[in-house]
Amino acid sequence: MIIDGKATATAIKAEIAEEVARIVASGGKRPHLAAILVGHDGGSETYVKNKVIACEQCGFTSTLIRYEADVTEEELLRKVDELNRNDDIDGFIVQLPLPRHISEQRVIEAIDYRKDVDGFHPINVGRMSIGLPCYISATPNGILELLRRYHIETSGKKCVILGRSNIVGKPMATLMMQKRQPGDATVTVCHSHSTNLKEECRQADIIIAAIGTPHFVTADMVKPGAVVIDVGTTRVPDSTRKSGYRLCGDVDFDNVAPLCSAITPVPGGVGPMTICSLMKNTLSAGKKEFYQ
Amino acid sequence: MIIDGKATATAIKAEIAEEVARIVASGGKRPHLAAILVGHDGGSETYVKNKVIACEQCGFTSTLIRYEADVTEEELLRKVDELNRNDDIDGFIVQLPLPRHISEQRVIEAIDYRKDVDGFHPINVGRMSIGLPCYISATPNGILELLRRYHIETSGKKCVILGRSNIVGKPMATLMMQKRQPGDATVTVCHSHSTNLKEECRQADIIIAAIGTPHFVTADMVKPGAVVIDVGTTRVPDSTRKSGYRLCGDVDFDNVAPLCSAITPVPGGVGPMTICSLMKNTLSAGKKEFYQ
Repeated sequence: MIIDGKATATAIKAEIAEEVARIVASGGKRPHLAAILVGHDGGSETYVKNKVIACEQCGFTSTLIRYEADVTEEELLRKVDELNRNDDIDGFIVQLPLPRHISEQRVIEAIDYRKDVDGFHPINVGRMSIGLPCYISATPNGILELLRRYHIETSGKKCVILGRSNIVGKPMATLMMQKRQPGDATVTVCHSHSTNLKEECRQADIIIAAIGTPHFVTADMVKPGAVVIDVGTTRVPDSTRKSGYRLCGDVDFDNVAPLCSAITPVPGGVGPMTICSLMKNTLSAGKKEFYQ
Repeated sequence: MIIDGKATATAIKAEIAEEVARIVASGGKRPHLAAILVGHDGGSETYVKNKVIACEQCGFTSTLIRYEADVTEEELLRKVDELNRNDDIDGFIVQLPLPRHISEQRVIEAIDYRKDVDGFHPINVGRMSIGLPCYISATPNGILELLRRYHIETSGKKCVILGRSNIVGKPMATLMMQKRQPGDATVTVCHSHSTNLKEECRQADIIIAAIGTPHFVTADMVKPGAVVIDVGTTRVPDSTRKSGYRLCGDVDFDNVAPLCSAITPVPGGVGPMTICSLMKNTLSAGKKEFYQ
């Protein structure tokens, strides 16, 4: 079974748009997401553009704030502070990565956690870990939603996560081991220092690959019947494409897919769900679901 | 090799006392820990008493604040607020568990994270997860210190953690997979829903047992040469003891120990290190090492 992230994301955005229409019809406020984009990194431009489009599809108001790459940290922090205090903005994000002269951590921590719809602020990270209501970072939450909608059993299953990043691997591990559905899995996190990575993968009922190495997960690493979630989105040069590149997952899809009970493709798997999760967080922000 | 937590804790407390003497001699402030104890639970009484003794050994000032079990949440929160604003108190803890009519989470979140030497506040949990300087909860940090002082290699090793609690299992998992030493391990977390727990344990280079079931880890679950860390401290009735009980670990020590390259006993292993970690956090609080 191919897990269709694109179709799932489209369905969820339609559900969000319906709810927004109801909220607005009953005199409520239309959710408003702001995004700060610094510089002209190709990937970041695309991500932010897609986020703005998703806002339109969900019926949200969106505001894009742009800075040149030479903006000072001070100026950026002033804008963050302004957005924190602007009651019309329900949530906002600062698109990463930022230029080297700016501390990403300082910027993230300057965001009011009640508007931190990316879920990167330590308070949201901590609350997620403890199991309290909060903004959960978009990629792990999108994966949970796919598992939920495709009725993939996780309880008691062995889930191997490849990668230990702060935005995917670590929160994904926490979420998959939580006492809830999806969750309750036996979770193993492998990374660059793991010596037994292949053996761990071969035992896995669920593999979540988030290391950013194209085609890292090969057929010999996958148990027949496993579920494989591919978070990788490496840009590989491709002169046959108009854009000059194609997106490449962490999984050798062509050879792995025939073994799997379910697998996400790249593109069209986890990617669309990530933006969709941001939209769900923005809706939650608009409804003040987690914080007053 | 038996890992001697008691001797290690004694050595660390002596190191702390030396540093405190230096600080005070050069005109600095003596660290001050306050503890709030509600009711008369036997375990809590013992823990708090031992914390007060440890403060004396480290040269800290300590203050014990007691309430009867019928104290209102409001009254407790007022005291927390008072301690937050009291500049003489560097750090404080509220001994858990609290009576049922009081929300532990509300009390924890009311503590100023800069004085949260237990490391339970969401900001400290989140910062620990991200890898930022912060108060790390005492039991996981004590285990890291034992691994460090006994030169136990963790990089690339398979570490199986039994239990997924907020105060041991989850933070321990995060710390063992961090990019640092000790750390860089391939981490697996098993719990009540795990179906392959025994197999996971048999593959482990390091087992950290924190489930609270006496003698749960038996010899058939341990690979020869493994390192076994026992966090369990269940009170088992024992009429031959003056106290009427003895502490029982999660590991069947007598049969497991001969297999291990290193193992912690109960008592005298992780337990003394836990209080010791609280002392280190209090010293850090006094020095304003993590926060201003």
